[in-house]
Amino acid sequence: MIPIVCVVGASDSGKTTFLEQLIPEVCSRGYRVGTIKHDVHGFEMDREGKDTWRHRQAGAATIAISSPTQVASIRVTDVEMELTEVVARYFWTEDLILVEGFKRSPFPKIEIFRAMIEPKPLCTEDDNLVALVSDDAVEMSVPVFRFQQVGAVADLIETRFLKNRKRSRIVVHLDGRRLPMNEFVQDIVINTLQGMLSSLRGWKPPKSLQINVQFHDE
Amino acid sequence: MIPIVCVVGASDSGKTTFLEQLIPEVCSRGYRVGTIKHDVHGFEMDREGKDTWRHRQAGAATIAISSPTQVASIRVTDVEMELTEVVARYFWTEDLILVEGFKRSPFPKIEIFRAMIEPKPLCTEDDNLVALVSDDAVEMSVPVFRFQQVGAVADLIETRFLKNRKRSRIVVHLDGRRLPMNEFVQDIVINTLQGMLSSLRGWKPPKSLQINVQFHDE
Repeated sequence: MIPIVCVVGASDSGKTTFLEQLIPEVCSRGYRVGTIKHDVHGFEMDREGKDTWRHRQAGAATIAISSPTQVASIRVTDVEMELTEVVARYFWTEDLILVEGFKRSPFPKIEIFRAMIEPKPLCTEDDNLVALVSDDAVEMSVPVFRFQQVGAVADLIETRFLKNRKRSRIVVHLDGRRLPMNEFVQDIVINTLQGMLSSLRGWKPPKSLQINVQFHDE
Repeated sequence: MIPIVCVVGASDSGKTTFLEQLIPEVCSRGYRVGTIKHDVHGFEMDREGKDTWRHRQAGAATIAISSPTQVASIRVTDVEMELTEVVARYFWTEDLILVEGFKRSPFPKIEIFRAMIEPKPLCTEDDNLVALVSDDAVEMSVPVFRFQQVGAVADLIETRFLKNRKRSRIVVHLDGRRLPMNEFVQDIVINTLQGMLSSLRGWKPPKSLQINVQFHDE
């Protein structure tokens, strides 16, 4: 799966502002970055009166809009989609996913911390915290950076999550639930797929392969 | 793949208005409907100043936003995504995709026609036209409906595309290009996948299966 790093912190700690500096820094190193925003309250992405908005009002469960330069989609869900499923569904050419929020997820985290406002950081190393970005010196078991040290934070991300990432990866979802597979099984499935599909006309060794199967009751 | 029907017509013929009636009619029959809007000019789905908008401005290639009730994504593309890829990527539980526009696609089409405004319909049976919805009697080789005959149009869609659709289907994309497969090969690949994955702990017979593989140069 594409590596995921969550940028977490209290409200108004400056997560989005920090991401606005971190994203171009990582992009400038030749990586393609995707982002995910966690919205606990619900959001309104579409605009009232637009055609896609009218489709949704009429009952469409999922709408997509496609143009020569971008594609967007909005999907109604019964329960909140798992972060791993969001990554598996919506990202396929990115090298890194930076997530704003999701502080309770198991993924590596960088916390944005304002000692002026908060008594102590939200996360500890037990929460998979890999760095703290702080407005003041803080005693932590993980590296602590100041807000202007965006390059150093990008260095840490690059070293820990982006370099030496050469292994082919497979993610399988059954009805949206991830099917766990160890690396040995992953290799077997990847090699079987490659072996089976590569004999077909139209096969060229791809960078990414996506398979969707719909099963129907007979 | 999920069946696709394009609703096409001249500008201001009333495609969106007709879809606003057709979508609830099809939903009321127990089908889950998705829609795709073709936007030739480019669209602005996000709102200036929102966090996701700021992520995109900072250089994120794809952004997603997740809440308990919906998930949305916006992806920057170099070239317009093929309609089949939009369907394969963004829709997985829908029974029918109604598309507004894409009149040059090879998919079945329903044309919305205003004899008051247009000299003749845009499509013929050669364009895979399956019905015309018209404000006046028109001599056509396909069924012609009036605007108020939404139920009859839904009947036609249900009969032609939704009933007797029992076969399991597989769609494979290599770097976004569809890999063509005949039905025999599809059955082999589906059966092999089921055989291989069903021995894993965590397998339960699913309605949908999604596999994503990222290949890396060794």
